[in-house]
Amino acid sequence: MRLESYQVKENNQLKHDGISYEVLAEKYGTPLYIFDETNFVQQVKKYKKALDNPYFETQILFASKALLTRAIGQLIAQLGIGQDVVSAGEIYTAIESGVEPSKLYFHGNNKLDDELIFAIENNVGTIVIDNRSEAKRLNAILTTQAKRQRVLLRLNPGVEAHTHEYIKTAHNDSKFGESVFDLTIKEVIETLANYPTLDFAGFHCHIGSQVFEEQSFLDSATEMIAFAKMIEDNLAINIKEINFGGGFGVYYTEEDQPFDLETFLPKFVQHVYNKTQEFDLKLEKVTIEPGRSLVNAMGSTLYRIGDLKTTTSGKNYLFVDGGMTDNIRPALYQAKYEALITNKAEETADTIYTIAGKACESGDKIINDYPLPKAETGDLLLVNGTGAYNYTMASHYNRIPKPAMIHILNGVDRLTVKRESFADMMRNEL
Amino acid sequence: MRLESYQVKENNQLKHDGISYEVLAEKYGTPLYIFDETNFVQQVKKYKKALDNPYFETQILFASKALLTRAIGQLIAQLGIGQDVVSAGEIYTAIESGVEPSKLYFHGNNKLDDELIFAIENNVGTIVIDNRSEAKRLNAILTTQAKRQRVLLRLNPGVEAHTHEYIKTAHNDSKFGESVFDLTIKEVIETLANYPTLDFAGFHCHIGSQVFEEQSFLDSATEMIAFAKMIEDNLAINIKEINFGGGFGVYYTEEDQPFDLETFLPKFVQHVYNKTQEFDLKLEKVTIEPGRSLVNAMGSTLYRIGDLKTTTSGKNYLFVDGGMTDNIRPALYQAKYEALITNKAEETADTIYTIAGKACESGDKIINDYPLPKAETGDLLLVNGTGAYNYTMASHYNRIPKPAMIHILNGVDRLTVKRESFADMMRNEL
Repeated sequence: MRLESYQVKENNQLKHDGISYEVLAEKYGTPLYIFDETNFVQQVKKYKKALDNPYFETQILFASKALLTRAIGQLIAQLGIGQDVVSAGEIYTAIESGVEPSKLYFHGNNKLDDELIFAIENNVGTIVIDNRSEAKRLNAILTTQAKRQRVLLRLNPGVEAHTHEYIKTAHNDSKFGESVFDLTIKEVIETLANYPTLDFAGFHCHIGSQVFEEQSFLDSATEMIAFAKMIEDNLAINIKEINFGGGFGVYYTEEDQPFDLETFLPKFVQHVYNKTQEFDLKLEKVTIEPGRSLVNAMGSTLYRIGDLKTTTSGKNYLFVDGGMTDNIRPALYQAKYEALITNKAEETADTIYTIAGKACESGDKIINDYPLPKAETGDLLLVNGTGAYNYTMASHYNRIPKPAMIHILNGVDRLTVKRESFADMMRNEL
Repeated sequence: MRLESYQVKENNQLKHDGISYEVLAEKYGTPLYIFDETNFVQQVKKYKKALDNPYFETQILFASKALLTRAIGQLIAQLGIGQDVVSAGEIYTAIESGVEPSKLYFHGNNKLDDELIFAIENNVGTIVIDNRSEAKRLNAILTTQAKRQRVLLRLNPGVEAHTHEYIKTAHNDSKFGESVFDLTIKEVIETLANYPTLDFAGFHCHIGSQVFEEQSFLDSATEMIAFAKMIEDNLAINIKEINFGGGFGVYYTEEDQPFDLETFLPKFVQHVYNKTQEFDLKLEKVTIEPGRSLVNAMGSTLYRIGDLKTTTSGKNYLFVDGGMTDNIRPALYQAKYEALITNKAEETADTIYTIAGKACESGDKIINDYPLPKAETGDLLLVNGTGAYNYTMASHYNRIPKPAMIHILNGVDRLTVKRESFADMMRNEL
């Protein structure tokens, strides 16, 4: 397992910022989500600095769907960055955590009327309209409420990126956004911009997830800027903001070669500036939405190893006390992870194990055929890179309670999410 | 969509046991899990009757992981059937709901020490030991507590069934159970049976999920009985019970051709009896574990249709107010479903839609390319066959609250699970 900067091996033990994982397991129990707050804060500050420029305002919007808790919301508020939310539940959580509503961007392909009303009543700064039907519904709601709302429109720029490849295509079949190649797109934008209730500020796009090619982000920026200019010229609309979305790839295993955002972001900003110059577009604001790239490497999950088993086909199983209930990604996306036995940190990884969870389901595996030192019941297994899309996607399948979460800040651990009780899971059952 | 016996079309409306779905949507909101209690109770009684025989005791064990709520637990208790549980959380829920602990069978490939202690302290009737390591741990715990525990051992009989095919194989690589082909299996059973703390009663097996071949169940029964006899003869152990598991296939779409359990179960019982006669095995008790086949057809999910969209590639999207958060099966298993617009029940299905959820994720689709009448925002979409593995696998992804659930009994609806609030989802966040 590739170690993170906060992880050090010492006397055969792996430690997180000086704290032994055994101490954390004893104190909080397992499975345990562990989040490195020190590095998260540093990373956000680095990204902010990397976006700094003399041309236009920039804003980081943290993608809540990757990881959101009250404590994460509080950090977002303290750091003064924006936040991308995709439901009334996320808006509620952000505001309860102290995030300034004006800094929220509300996304989603099917925002419900109730959610739009909730967003308006709570003064959410920007609603990212997904499509023409939503624009119409939003206008109707705002008319009733005699209110005005700042909005962007989500566009598909015809750049679709999947991991190491990306294509330019006019044949969009995503459930999100309106396509720049739609023959009626000008009329759609004109209608939207003319709704008296809408303060139309510009566009949003998002080209994919776990994208590893810098060029795909640059190309999509070019397409968006060219399109924005065309709209300005044709419709006499002022495009003030483009939100370029997220999708920056992160490291899970050696197969992933992410580029460094700290060096990429200044290049990106310069590219956007050059293109706005080239196309003569006056952008006031540029926003990006990193989620996974800000939290994934900061999160890890600590499990206690239970029974071990070798099948008649020769497969070595190592069972942990969590699994698909706290990390659905291997089952859902065939996602890959790395792991380490924290109390055998310096021992040779000479045995191949399939690391499986405790759910009553054959597909509940975390890593297939992975080398570890010879494991024993009671050992502690750490899986890195679980900061994003683990806690937020957790289920109660098999009535397994959600794990606790702790943050570690400058070598001090604190509980941020209490472990669920059995009674918690029955609370709404009459 | 194939209608269930409790569904009738009337004046272009679909009704559930006389109640219009529009009335249910107005009363309880959407998305809404709807469970037909009338048919569930009848089905359980039919299965019980179908298992009735003069040769040995039979018991239905309801598989909790398919669907468990307080209300379902109460029904299990009233019907007097047994229940298969796979975690301390399920044991807690069953007992809180009034299920007799002696009727619980505790399964799982990695039961934690705490869970075994919880089961013992709560007088769980039977623990189904997964493997030799667990047997050792259980014996150690029971020794400390000076208690004795009835147990079965989970075996892989070498029959592996997947939907329409099944194979006989000695090359087991499942995470569950001990293989009958393991060269040390006799010693494993001998050790287990000799633990003074364990009242070893027999075996459990489970050959797969969504199995459509009657013969695979009969073959696995034959293998299990032959093996049990061999063990009796070699080890002078009395095998009193065999739990033949579940996995009976159910209808989701026309691709699924399930056999009728009401006619199969008497054949199965007769087959088991014939084989026990042939092998001269005196079984006292036979148990089976239907979960999905008892609840799936009783459950459906009602959604409100939101925005509609046609992409530049010509795909028609229909968005509903739920999705992968209440039904992960399409994304997780590429599971297929059928649906109907309840307020256009008698209209021609002449438009092809991809029914997608509201989560901020491309994979959040319920049904791909499915014919429906021309849909409008505000219509109600019903998806049938969601009784199993929907509520139990629900997540809070995107901070979308879990839907409410209602039961309908003899034409009367009642709330059994309250809709979650936003505050509920933050309750444990400090």
